Amino acid sequence: MAPVHCRATHRQLLTHTSERFVESNQPNGHSAFESPEVSPAAERLRYILNEDDDMPTPTLFTEMDTLQREGDELEWKESARWVKFEEKVEEGGERWSKPHVSTLSLHSLFELRTCLQTGTVLLDLDGYSLPQIVGEMFIEEGMISPDLREKISFVLLRKHRHQTKKPIHRSLADIGKSSSASECLCYLSDSVTTRSMNDIADSPSTDQLKNKFMKKIPRDAEASNVLIGEVDFLNKPFVAFVRLAQATTLGGLTEVPVPTRFLFVLLGPQGKAKSYNEIGRAIATLMVDDLFSDVAYKARDREDLIAGIDEFLDEVIVLPPGEWDPKIRIEPPKKVTSADKRKSVFSLNELGQMNGTAGGGGGLAEDEEMPVQHDFCGGLYRDIKRKLPWLPSDFYEGFHIQTISAVLFIYLGCITNAITFGGLLGDATDNYQGVMESFLGTALAGSVFCLFGGQPLIILSSTGPILIFEKLLFDFSKNNNIDYMELRLWIGIHSCLQCFILVATDASYIIKYMTRFTEEGFSSLISFIFISDAIKKMVGSFKYYPINTDFKPDYVTAYKCECLLNVTALDWSQLSKKECLKYGGSLVGRSCKYVPDLALMSFILFFGTYSMTITLKKFKFSRYFPTKVRKKLISDFSIFMSIMTFVGLDMLIGLKTPKLIVPTEFKPTRPDRGWIVMPFGKNPWWVYLASFVPALLVTILIFMDQQISAVIVNRKENKLKKGCGYHLDLFWVGILMAACSFMGLPWYVAATVISIAHIDSLKMESESSAPGEQPQFLGVREQRLTGILVFVLTGVSIFLAPILKFIPMPVLYGVFLYMGVASLSGIQFWDRIKLYMMPSKHQPDFSYLRHVPLRRVHLFTFIQILCLTVLWILKSTFLAIIFPVMILGLMVVRKMLDMVFSQHDLAWLDDLLPEKEKKKKEDDKKKGKDKDKDKKKSKGDDSEEEVGSFIEALLPPAGLVLYSMHLYLPVGPLSDECRVCVFAFRRSITLTPTTRQVQSPTWTAGTVSSNCTSPTKTWSTPVW
Amino acid sequence: MAPVHCRATHRQLLTHTSERFVESNQPNGHSAFESPEVSPAAERLRYILNEDDDMPTPTLFTEMDTLQREGDELEWKESARWVKFEEKVEEGGERWSKPHVSTLSLHSLFELRTCLQTGTVLLDLDGYSLPQIVGEMFIEEGMISPDLREKISFVLLRKHRHQTKKPIHRSLADIGKSSSASECLCYLSDSVTTRSMNDIADSPSTDQLKNKFMKKIPRDAEASNVLIGEVDFLNKPFVAFVRLAQATTLGGLTEVPVPTRFLFVLLGPQGKAKSYNEIGRAIATLMVDDLFSDVAYKARDREDLIAGIDEFLDEVIVLPPGEWDPKIRIEPPKKVTSADKRKSVFSLNELGQMNGTAGGGGGLAEDEEMPVQHDFCGGLYRDIKRKLPWLPSDFYEGFHIQTISAVLFIYLGCITNAITFGGLLGDATDNYQGVMESFLGTALAGSVFCLFGGQPLIILSSTGPILIFEKLLFDFSKNNNIDYMELRLWIGIHSCLQCFILVATDASYIIKYMTRFTEEGFSSLISFIFISDAIKKMVGSFKYYPINTDFKPDYVTAYKCECLLNVTALDWSQLSKKECLKYGGSLVGRSCKYVPDLALMSFILFFGTYSMTITLKKFKFSRYFPTKVRKKLISDFSIFMSIMTFVGLDMLIGLKTPKLIVPTEFKPTRPDRGWIVMPFGKNPWWVYLASFVPALLVTILIFMDQQISAVIVNRKENKLKKGCGYHLDLFWVGILMAACSFMGLPWYVAATVISIAHIDSLKMESESSAPGEQPQFLGVREQRLTGILVFVLTGVSIFLAPILKFIPMPVLYGVFLYMGVASLSGIQFWDRIKLYMMPSKHQPDFSYLRHVPLRRVHLFTFIQILCLTVLWILKSTFLAIIFPVMILGLMVVRKMLDMVFSQHDLAWLDDLLPEKEKKKKEDDKKKGKDKDKDKKKSKGDDSEEEVGSFIEALLPPAGLVLYSMHLYLPVGPLSDECRVCVFAFRRSITLTPTTRQVQSPTWTAGTVSSNCTSPTKTWSTPVW
Repeated sequence: MAPVHCRATHRQLLTHTSERFVESNQPNGHSAFESPEVSPAAERLRYILNEDDDMPTPTLFTEMDTLQREGDELEWKESARWVKFEEKVEEGGERWSKPHVSTLSLHSLFELRTCLQTGTVLLDLDGYSLPQIVGEMFIEEGMISPDLREKISFVLLRKHRHQTKKPIHRSLADIGKSSSASECLCYLSDSVTTRSMNDIADSPSTDQLKNKFMKKIPRDAEASNVLIGEVDFLNKPFVAFVRLAQATTLGGLTEVPVPTRFLFVLLGPQGKAKSYNEIGRAIATLMVDDLFSDVAYKARDREDLIAGIDEFLDEVIVLPPGEWDPKIRIEPPKKVTSADKRKSVFSLNELGQMNGTAGGGGGLAEDEEMPVQHDFCGGLYRDIKRKLPWLPSDFYEGFHIQTISAVLFIYLGCITNAITFGGLLGDATDNYQGVMESFLGTALAGSVFCLFGGQPLIILSSTGPILIFEKLLFDFSKNNNIDYMELRLWIGIHSCLQCFILVATDASYIIKYMTRFTEEGFSSLISFIFISDAIKKMVGSFKYYPINTDFKPDYVTAYKCECLLNVTALDWSQLSKKECLKYGGSLVGRSCKYVPDLALMSFILFFGTYSMTITLKKFKFSRYFPTKVRKKLISDFSIFMSIMTFVGLDMLIGLKTPKLIVPTEFKPTRPDRGWIVMPFGKNPWWVYLASFVPALLVTILIFMDQQISAVIVNRKENKLKKGCGYHLDLFWVGILMAACSFMGLPWYVAATVISIAHIDSLKMESESSAPGEQPQFLGVREQRLTGILVFVLTGVSIFLAPILKFIPMPVLYGVFLYMGVASLSGIQFWDRIKLYMMPSKHQPDFSYLRHVPLRRVHLFTFIQILCLTVLWILKSTFLAIIFPVMILGLMVVRKMLDMVFSQHDLAWLDDLLPEKEKKKKEDDKKKGKDKDKDKKKSKGDDSEEEVGSFIEALLPPAGLVLYSMHLYLPVGPLSDECRVCVFAFRRSITLTPTTRQVQSPTWTAGTVSSNCTSPTKTWSTPVW
Repeated sequence: MAPVHCRATHRQLLTHTSERFVESNQPNGHSAFESPEVSPAAERLRYILNEDDDMPTPTLFTEMDTLQREGDELEWKESARWVKFEEKVEEGGERWSKPHVSTLSLHSLFELRTCLQTGTVLLDLDGYSLPQIVGEMFIEEGMISPDLREKISFVLLRKHRHQTKKPIHRSLADIGKSSSASECLCYLSDSVTTRSMNDIADSPSTDQLKNKFMKKIPRDAEASNVLIGEVDFLNKPFVAFVRLAQATTLGGLTEVPVPTRFLFVLLGPQGKAKSYNEIGRAIATLMVDDLFSDVAYKARDREDLIAGIDEFLDEVIVLPPGEWDPKIRIEPPKKVTSADKRKSVFSLNELGQMNGTAGGGGGLAEDEEMPVQHDFCGGLYRDIKRKLPWLPSDFYEGFHIQTISAVLFIYLGCITNAITFGGLLGDATDNYQGVMESFLGTALAGSVFCLFGGQPLIILSSTGPILIFEKLLFDFSKNNNIDYMELRLWIGIHSCLQCFILVATDASYIIKYMTRFTEEGFSSLISFIFISDAIKKMVGSFKYYPINTDFKPDYVTAYKCECLLNVTALDWSQLSKKECLKYGGSLVGRSCKYVPDLALMSFILFFGTYSMTITLKKFKFSRYFPTKVRKKLISDFSIFMSIMTFVGLDMLIGLKTPKLIVPTEFKPTRPDRGWIVMPFGKNPWWVYLASFVPALLVTILIFMDQQISAVIVNRKENKLKKGCGYHLDLFWVGILMAACSFMGLPWYVAATVISIAHIDSLKMESESSAPGEQPQFLGVREQRLTGILVFVLTGVSIFLAPILKFIPMPVLYGVFLYMGVASLSGIQFWDRIKLYMMPSKHQPDFSYLRHVPLRRVHLFTFIQILCLTVLWILKSTFLAIIFPVMILGLMVVRKMLDMVFSQHDLAWLDDLLPEKEKKKKEDDKKKGKDKDKDKKKSKGDDSEEEVGSFIEALLPPAGLVLYSMHLYLPVGPLSDECRVCVFAFRRSITLTPTTRQVQSPTWTAGTVSSNCTSPTKTWSTPVW
């Protein structure tokens, strides 16, 4: 019997496998028993993978077909496919399973290895049609009789039947027919699966071309076909692995019109179908493995392929059978180890290359944007230089459906803000600046800033501190008989000049000191203010429209409100409330001070808008509707849809809820002022100079408010690609200060919450390519179009008044509430607050929790909460005017935290302050004494530090180094046994000078070099 | 150097491993290349695992300690532990990681195998203390010099430091101290980890005893300790595996006071810590593997252990490196393959044993409860016989905190229902039956039923059809001058007798024909009625309290309502609306027909109660608060908390919303009737007889309503253990009919939605034992106490009126809405409706979707929707009176579905009708011709069917058979090659008579035996 022969070969070959299992020097786990040396398999791979590196191999689409008997005919039926993850044909369900991780058995992998060792392997075969290729398969296999050859060829050339995605609905007659059980079981109608009628056709069939699955496969993809079947005429398996010299379309072999490059055939005697099937799944999984597919493309011989399997086996992850059920289909993970990382072990020349690209991604390193040297206007110059090349893309990248939803959302936010602040400013300045000025100013400042500013994603708006300043200034002018508008103009001019000075001196360098602590503290506070303002407004409507809680329906006759007056010349009963009071009447009656329904209706509108928006936003994660509808339509337009719904509800019920009223005429709110303020004439000359002092306060206000918002917008998490422009931003804010002052319009500065909302509404996700792959957050649609449109719309709102007047204010307050809540999400500070309420075993697996003790995390959060509470209290007093300056306070607190927390903890919970990083670098350079009192004196000697800084220089793409460091360490002088602690590794590493290999990644106390204390943030990926 | 020696041994041994990898006949994957024969490893295991089967081995708790250098001292520090899943010490975070599945590398498993092959293995060592055990370790290992022995002993006897769960908060002084980086990194304070001071102590330390983790470990557990370390004095690894003859407490070795049974030691030269660590994790994972731990307990020698590893390797699940990131910690699965299933491969005598227990679980097979034979009162007798033994437990099992929440919830549901139906009945019968009668009747009928009924989880209530019947009956009596109450009494008496007849004839057998289709259709319909009623009531309040949408706050003076009348004797302005109308006045004014605020407030209360309940119910799945608080307090009491919140809100606002008003005096609603209805005297004699006819309708109504509700309550998903009591239930319903008729109270029957709510509020979940194990749904707290308490409370509601009057009706309607929505969840029909809106790739992995084509599923759902629509329309007409009879209609439709759908599809989507199952069985027995027109004539020959029915007899514990069938097939006559299709396998199986093994589980068309068409429901677990 043949099996004996097979087993013998087998045993010899597998002996080899298992040996190299223990002998080889694995990248992710050193052998415990053998001295590290490169295994023959790894050596082979290194050779072939480095051969010609410049040409990337195409992506492989793998289809597995199994041999089935349909009546008396044999045919190949598609049973699974792989782009990256496995999709199985569910026979009964006549459909594709969800993409899942291929779980294999160890056994099938070993059997596959044997298959490749014993079977036919044809590499770079010149194949043009399936019959020819099948014919070539028998050249190597000498033992096959011509009779068998013919039979095998016959089987291999049977028709292929593919599983198409769309089921075709059958008529009722068909339904009746298929109701019998036996027919149903083997039922495979032509309408459901497509049949390629001619296997030797060269051009793709219409079925193939129509297949929509094509769009999930990359353009350059090639196919690998796995054919598995049991036949009755064989008594030992027939195996062939074919690589074609050129990818060729082999008729209806593949479900999609993708040319075939690889062919794996396994035909065996009957009775082992399940086992064959598993082998087929194993080779298919291997073919879509990034590393193995590279090997398959570049293999010179059979042994290279075996080496590829061995490397694959080295890296597999094993799940214990008692802790996992093999029946569970594992959902594709959010992220997998990148192929490059895995390949880098084998390629010498790729490391340097990757060092260059890993950090950037098109963006600029922070140091480049904010250099330490302060040359005159250098920052501004660099900002312009950086921004200019992006200018065209700033416009054409705006043409996208998402822009519409973003514009609508931000527009509504902006006009609500304009009306709110306009009203408040009007009250504060006796209508010198009213709603009209607010609209005009918002439109002017916003559009100019979005057109020319450094960071067009920032939305300018009036802010609280400016409002308070204006109020104080107006009162001061009134009491001292100084002309308010003229004084304000001079303050604006001074402030503008001061901004220029700040720009010229690169003062924005201060943002380097705004760490996550400051940034998140500030943005949380602003969010809380937004939330509390929205709720306050809502509660206010209960005061504005008091509810008559004593109302008894039966005593409706007792509720009335009459206007009583002694003079009876008029028909008092016809007078309205206002008229009555105007003419000196008094209102008498039990219903006078109540307004029915409006308060409750407002509440319903407010809360309804908020919760509907939240619900629709979450709808993105539901299972309903196709992904496009969910994401592009429902989630992106959630705010718009909520507003429309509740505007509709409000119109339906028809109550007189307070509506959004915008000015309809283009004229100053106060008739006695024009559109231009004259600089001279109304105030004494010394006022022009003295206004320098209040201008200083305004400048600080504006500077802090602007820059912290910019820092928040430029957060690393947002993955902005076009760089920041702190200096340019400030420059334009200064100019707009002056311009607005001349026109008597309010002053504008970056608004944190609306800017965050702007960014959130422009987030891009990758359209996932391979089925099962998770969409990745790609960044933000950085462009100037949305901002400009928002402010142009704001400007023309005067003409939109007839439409806008249908929008009830409570709906807009609901939007405000949503904005506040949404800008809190994704903030680490907020996550940490939630940790207080979670028992530790339920806490999410945040990386900082793995590295910082929980009580330290809680302490850090507690300090942050304390700071915010103090700020909140200060904000409620007259000190609100210096509110942005309080950011300085936060920065001081952060500085003091250096004394409470170790730099290790701070590196995880926050960023490190620049002087720590700088000092570290200086220390490294000068090898001087460690002056920092928080840091213990380094015990390491000079050579240690040298190695330390060398490793550090190597490190940025942290993961890479882990794999490659033991191969490529420097040739410089090393002490006998030096230990260096590197944070990227989060462990200490022992370097031996002889082998220059990282021997043991264990922690060793007492020999910590100084560079342990300040990891830079870029290495945040924990390696082990 | 030693490694060379080590490698040599190694190579030889691993050769053996890899060979058996391919040679062995695996249970879940047959070798493709070798003929199936039992491998030596499996042979070994089968021998030792069957040795003494009766004694189950204890559960193992595994702790892994690694050697650390603390200053100049060495000590063992706990680094991970396993009860079932792995928990890792997160060094930096100073805490335990979440329990996760141990992902191992293949490499470490191979290395472990080598370790066990080359290292010391001591089995059944008489150990009493650690030093003695360590001493014994060197007996086998001849090559170790005395000097080394001493050093190894020294290291092994170092102190053990355990990770305790609770961090101790340190003073601020300490915080300051630890802020330096280097100290922090190696910081391990005594306050955080406990240190066992004396390793040779025999009694557990206080730290051990205080450890709360103990409660997660089973009582009989024993410990296995894994000690891993690198030392500088060894140049080859020292490995020892020790099994003690008796589990012994070895001082502070283990974190918990659990005696140690196993000890694994691995000490090796420096530089390989990571690799050692992985080996330690591998052995630890093996030790908690159910199968390997059995092997470890029963192993006779080293080879048995190796065989155990080999078997483990055979079963491992392999994840490809390109599709999974090893850094991801895999959450424990909901269910894992049971250990028994895995062990059954090796044990001959366990199969039969398991066959017996797998089906039951304490419950009774359905056939036993509902036998086919109809002996007089046999059903009732069996019901009583079944129920009687549970009687004591029906009371003591009710003492649980959950009872309180259930009682409050159901009580509120019941009185709301009583008031609603009482009011409607009062209107319909001119107050012959009013709210008072409704309360009294509910209390009486409910408590009697819960005390004596067969299924005390059923809640009796008035239902819609009865209400309509009463209305028609009252109108009929009034028009024909027949005394209503007397006529009703006679109908009740007749109906009671008819019920007795139904009971005596076991008519409840009809429930066998109520499949999932009927059951879910009916319960969905009732739920929809509940939801629509709740919403109707809510909308009604907008009509009852009309909103004045024209109200303009400024024109408050224009809104009044005056009472005008010609007669001026009274001060009309003081009259209320009702008084005014009473005295013939007319109301004039713009506010007369409006009621402010109440409608909107009602809406807020209604919707608020509903959404808060839903939110709190979902809170169970959140991460906040400890599990107990979340589940027992917030989730179980969610309805109560929501009601309290909104009652509070209502009181706070103080509006006159409609409140729950219960009668406060114990007297009939109508003063002219007493509490007893006399049977004779008011109507002519023929009425007594003629009332038989309407009674028939009532009986059918009650029978159908009662039994379908009972079927829904007794659903398999509810895992009821005490069996059902359809006959007994009907008996008591009959008695209560008569009793209520005599007292002139409404008639009561099982209420579907409230009964479902009752069951939902009494669901039990297992308290998960091992960390990471998912809690399992155990069943329902079946007892009589909650029901009785609910109805006693209903009875005394008269005295609770002062409290109940604070509850606004909208809040209760909100509860009704919740009840309706909640009873829809978990219904397959509802899941299938949702499928319409999901693209197929997002659909959940329902098992029926894997086996039935989506368009058939959709068709089935569509028919169901159509049926419900027709029923809904009928319900809205006068036909509502025969509503429960429509269930018969549903059953007819279901019968017709046999013609549209194959039995295969129906078995997945629904249950099979009894005649199908019966017919199948009869067919199997008689081997007669297939008469069913839906079924094609079986093509198989007799012997095929014989095998079929044999397999079928074997099948019930389906999963088991999969593994064991090829070992234990019958010795009866088999055809040369017979193929049998068995549904439990969902594939066809080829049986070869020679080996009697299931050779190939592939589908083969054309040879389907008749038993393919009607799978019984018990085999619903898909095996592949």
